[in-house]
Amino acid sequence: MEKIAVLGGGSWATALVKVLSENKSQVNWWMRNDADVQHLINFKHNPRYLSQVQFDLNYVKPSSDIEAVVASSEWVILAVPAAFVQLALANLPTDALKGKAVVSAIKGMVPVENTLVTDFLKHHYSVPEEQLLVIAGPCHAEEVALEKQSYLTIGSHNMPAAEHFCELLRNRYVKANPLDDLDGIEYCAVMKNIIALACGIAHGQNYGDNFQAVLVSNAMFEIERFLDAMVPLHRALNGSAYLGDLLVTAYSQFSRNRTFGNMIGRGYTVKSAQVEMNMVAEGYYAVQSIHELNKKLQVAMPITSAVYNILYERISPAVEFAILKEKLK
Amino acid sequence: MEKIAVLGGGSWATALVKVLSENKSQVNWWMRNDADVQHLINFKHNPRYLSQVQFDLNYVKPSSDIEAVVASSEWVILAVPAAFVQLALANLPTDALKGKAVVSAIKGMVPVENTLVTDFLKHHYSVPEEQLLVIAGPCHAEEVALEKQSYLTIGSHNMPAAEHFCELLRNRYVKANPLDDLDGIEYCAVMKNIIALACGIAHGQNYGDNFQAVLVSNAMFEIERFLDAMVPLHRALNGSAYLGDLLVTAYSQFSRNRTFGNMIGRGYTVKSAQVEMNMVAEGYYAVQSIHELNKKLQVAMPITSAVYNILYERISPAVEFAILKEKLK
Repeated sequence: MEKIAVLGGGSWATALVKVLSENKSQVNWWMRNDADVQHLINFKHNPRYLSQVQFDLNYVKPSSDIEAVVASSEWVILAVPAAFVQLALANLPTDALKGKAVVSAIKGMVPVENTLVTDFLKHHYSVPEEQLLVIAGPCHAEEVALEKQSYLTIGSHNMPAAEHFCELLRNRYVKANPLDDLDGIEYCAVMKNIIALACGIAHGQNYGDNFQAVLVSNAMFEIERFLDAMVPLHRALNGSAYLGDLLVTAYSQFSRNRTFGNMIGRGYTVKSAQVEMNMVAEGYYAVQSIHELNKKLQVAMPITSAVYNILYERISPAVEFAILKEKLK
Repeated sequence: MEKIAVLGGGSWATALVKVLSENKSQVNWWMRNDADVQHLINFKHNPRYLSQVQFDLNYVKPSSDIEAVVASSEWVILAVPAAFVQLALANLPTDALKGKAVVSAIKGMVPVENTLVTDFLKHHYSVPEEQLLVIAGPCHAEEVALEKQSYLTIGSHNMPAAEHFCELLRNRYVKANPLDDLDGIEYCAVMKNIIALACGIAHGQNYGDNFQAVLVSNAMFEIERFLDAMVPLHRALNGSAYLGDLLVTAYSQFSRNRTFGNMIGRGYTVKSAQVEMNMVAEGYYAVQSIHELNKKLQVAMPITSAVYNILYERISPAVEFAILKEKLK
């Protein structure tokens, strides 16, 4: 029986615990909140997310002791929001991940340090590249909970490890494929949140479906230019880990990034949109990180620039999109 | 003043007449139905489609005499359904298009002959390749009527003619770009209707957004393989004329192909879906044409094959999609 730590109590963590435990891996599930752990033990479901999913406690071991959870696992999956990854791991000794395969299920950059999650793990926890993996692909956790057919891509430079992890995930409704592009997949997952935010800003200003289709088409070239400069590699960028992931986010009515963008497009300030939504959209941080990284690269990124200027330079969406629409084709 | 014939009275024809006439071209607008022509002359709007659009009769000349309309125009735009192109042109002498630039705004194959509209024009009306153009791009006519920002691509091997036609279209809310890929754009526009139909069939069977994102990603490779075999050319397939056009159709709630597919996915027969919708979705014909063409090419087209088998071989959607989902990744 494989022993897998899942760190995080959100909807994506919950969906992964469902898939892995139903395949009869032992899932050591860390949640920060003691009450949530007790609820899980008592009632066999997560009180906060995907509450309809019932867990078999023969395979799921909830705990709020992160050190014990990691120590008793061979695989460690990080599924906390990118903004909280430093905080979540703060109680973990820097050698705690030694010898373990570490899988990032996080789609976002580490704040302040402005690095990919896997780079953060390399630098602070000395995880060597061959032990690092990422989970990508177009995958609403809600649909996994409903057992709707979904496809995941496991990125890693260690293809046997990626294939092994795919095996742990595969079931009746989940297909998984390994792909040798750790960084590219991770950057693409970050950028798609910026594009979803841009789609929302467009929608909020009454741009229509014709415009969104052009925006997403142009976004693919923007992502390609950035990846070619940042992590050169010949990629099939229409694959489900790249284009697919972008589509499921940009066209989802439920995307938090799209909703946040929509409010900005309708004239809300960043602050009031955040207060109203009672949460922060990942694209808000992502756009600052990518903007920062692109200062060195100087790649043409008109969509990212427009979103950055609107959110961080307080330029009006109307002005930025009047400029942007001239650059699209 | 440029003189432009627009043949057809549907929503896309109506939107094109609006754009061209507002730019002060003289639009000679052919509609089959005399009563519709009279209505237009009396009330300045099309009674059947986009009725909110008012026309300036100083620039718009409606007529049901196709020969006179074509004879008095330098440009001829075909905007009838692909299934009726032969019938619509039946009264036109085979030399009537001599010396004119002919623009296809039709997204579909000519039935029975199984050819692109531009090939049909070459063979039956002796229009030389350098006088042929196509209008493509993600463009709901309804959004053009609402003056929402839209982007069109004009495909032709005659780039000066394409650029000239772009100039006739450009305005405050329409951008147009020329592209030297007449056939590729046309085939892609045909195939996107098959993919939209497939998305509908998936939705009708309760597949979710995760699956659709993967379906569309895989469709891009399927389109690429077919185009590479049929009309080899190095294409930026993520451009708005290809990916953009696919997205606006596949993700539209109003796409007739998607709606038709949805009914098929829910168990309607082809016949009952057609009766219920009181119309025929273009993808229904397109899939037969592409299937036929691919008999020679033998390109791997799992999505097209699945749709063909469901619609023409009466294999159940459940069976075909159980096979298809194993081929996607």
